Amino acid sequence: MSVPDSPATGVPSAPSDPVAPGWARPSRLDAAIAARLRRTADGLVAAVVRAHDSGEVLMVAWMDDEALHRTLTTGRATYWSRSRREYWVKGATSGHHQYVRSVALDCDGDALLVSVDQVGAACHTGHRTCFFTELPVTSPEAR
Amino acid sequence: MSVPDSPATGVPSAPSDPVAPGWARPSRLDAAIAARLRRTADGLVAAVVRAHDSGEVLMVAWMDDEALHRTLTTGRATYWSRSRREYWVKGATSGHHQYVRSVALDCDGDALLVSVDQVGAACHTGHRTCFFTELPVTSPEAR
Repeated sequence: MSVPDSPATGVPSAPSDPVAPGWARPSRLDAAIAARLRRTADGLVAAVVRAHDSGEVLMVAWMDDEALHRTLTTGRATYWSRSRREYWVKGATSGHHQYVRSVALDCDGDALLVSVDQVGAACHTGHRTCFFTELPVTSPEAR
Repeated sequence: MSVPDSPATGVPSAPSDPVAPGWARPSRLDAAIAARLRRTADGLVAAVVRAHDSGEVLMVAWMDDEALHRTLTTGRATYWSRSRREYWVKGATSGHHQYVRSVALDCDGDALLVSVDQVGAACHTGHRTCFFTELPVTSPEAR
């Protein structure tokens, strides 16, 4: 859940921050879609991003209703930054755009799968995918 | 973020529930790995699950430190159920086991990519993947 174009450097805003949680922010999202979402306490759903061509999982980010609306209607992947508390269009500063090919909602409405044409690296570190750190699977059954 | 083996039917437990949040539950997770995790307020990281062979994204679920420890050391995907507030081993009731092939952490430590050999359907609805509901991408740029 990185903010690849602007690495999260700050801590989340204080509770007195005037930015409303996702469920309270204005949104133009289609009401029928909005009704299917099951949001976190701060009004977000997880967005899993994969490369349309290779199927590779690139990153995970967050969307509120309006970010999903913008993603569906502009064709440019748009997220909600939890650290900066603002919308960000992937690639706006890095040039590493994500052109949206399809979006699917999961069975219980709290996760999205966004298939994109990824320009350049998805990860702000320069890696193609954010998932470049392998953890050791030590089970005797591991194959 | 389904609970494929046991559809979430109840509401989250009341605040007086004695089950501690993820960051406070006992865990045997390797300290070096634990130090890299960046958890939600309730002590969880998102786990994106994909099929090892096809690369298909199957589902999203949640892990706390101990669920990740069990996943890495038993080779069986194990999650934390937010609705039931307990650990669940995928397939324990459905038989739709997930044998863990690899686990990767993302660049900022708040999401995992779990590659599995999936037995049967990943979704409790019977679908192979939980992401079977396509949303309309209406951008003129959509290809």
